[in-house]
Amino acid sequence: MILGKVIGTVWATRKDDQLKGMKLQLVREIDEDGKDKSRVVVCVDSVGAGVGEVVLFAQGSSARQTELTRNKPVDAVITAIVDKLDTP
Amino acid sequence: MILGKVIGTVWATRKDDQLKGMKLQLVREIDEDGKDKSRVVVCVDSVGAGVGEVVLFAQGSSARQTELTRNKPVDAVITAIVDKLDTP
Amino acid sequence: MILGKVIGTVWATRKDDQLKGMKLQLVREIDEDGKDKSRVVVCVDSVGAGVGEVVLFAQGSSARQTELTRNKPVDAVITAIVDKLDTP
Amino acid sequence: MILGKVIGTVWATRKDDQLKGMKLQLVREIDEDGKDKSRVVVCVDSVGAGVGEVVLFAQGSSARQTELTRNKPVDAVITAIVDKLDTP
Amino acid sequence: MILGKVIGTVWATRKDDQLKGMKLQLVREIDEDGKDKSRVVVCVDSVGAGVGEVVLFAQGSSARQTELTRNKPVDAVITAIVDKLDTP
Repeated sequence: MILGKVIGTVWATRKDDQLKGMKLQLVREIDEDGKDKSRVVVCVDSVGAGVGEVVLFAQGSSARQTELTRNKPVDAVITAIVDKLDTP
Repeated sequence: MILGKVIGTVWATRKDDQLKGMKLQLVREIDEDGKDKSRVVVCVDSVGAGVGEVVLFAQGSSARQTELTRNKPVDAVITAIVDKLDTP
Repeated sequence: MILGKVIGTVWATRKDDQLKGMKLQLVREIDEDGKDKSRVVVCVDSVGAGVGEVVLFAQGSSARQTELTRNKPVDAVITAIVDKLDTP
Repeated sequence: MILGKVIGTVWATRKDDQLKGMKLQLVREIDEDGKDKSRVVVCVDSVGAGVGEVVLFAQGSSARQTELTRNKPVDAVITAIVDKLDTP
Repeated sequence: MILGKVIGTVWATRKDDQLKGMKLQLVREIDEDGKDKSRVVVCVDSVGAGVGEVVLFAQGSSARQTELTRNKPVDAVITAIVDKLDTP
């Protein structure tokens, strides 16, 4: 999984039927110090993350292993909201 | 999924039989401000996007989870046309 | 899929049995203007592309969805020979 | 697989149910000389690696082929602790 | 598949049970002229390649399509030893 920060939401009326009802979040990759990276990914949200929250997201076929995304054309999903990074 | 902009169409007469009848769109990755990135991907279009439209596309095995692309040798598919990015 | 240009052929006598009889083409990624990119991928050829031709290739598990490559340890396959890019 | 070094642990209370009980390690990619690379990945740990240890991790669907991660939304897993790199 | 050169071997006593008995080779990506690239991948070897040999390796789920790696947490496998690149 990759660390990211939710920076916004994507609105799309015309979309594949299987995406209906899914919240699509804009997630910017960040490093372990919380600094922005350049890549931004659109993720389905399976945990209810809000803008500004630090999250983990899974990509590829693993993004289809949540109840919400199974067998859907989804290649990125938020799977956790990060409380703390412990880097001794 | 990744944000992109449709910039054109690919014409190919000689192709794998399973691609017959599929519209192949040239999609340039863009960032969350709509600025061009360098990567261009050829996507099958499952939603009827036109040149100039901002879209989401899914990659990898997830690109085969639409009705149009199931079990096909397709690794990128347009799954939504973006109305708006809401980045508060 | 990604745009590429066939630049040569790979010869390999010692290989996994499942690759026997497959033509292995060296394909350089190109951009939408036909300019070379730095990445070169070795693709199985399912459409009979020759050196110098512009092609599309699929990667990952999608590369195993052609008749030739099904269930084989192949992660890149040429699926089309490009006639024309239409970028209005 | 990729070489990495465990640099910390991720704490997350709110997460997909299927991640419950899994240890999530922050792993920095390193090169074959042990030098840091910029990419940091969050991996599930299937071998009990501690902070500072050099490890191998697998990504993508292959990360779901351990007993711990099967069918879970996990795209990176530590599969070995490296004793030595033999580069003659 | 990608061109690489075997540069060494990885020793790991503590590892996922499914990796037991597999030879883990350090493979540096090279370009079509044999020049080193910066990326180094750890591959399972299904063809008996030695240090210094030029090889092809497959990644992702395709790396699990050899007899040796089927259903294993392996995301990179050497599938061929290159005799010659023919780039006219």
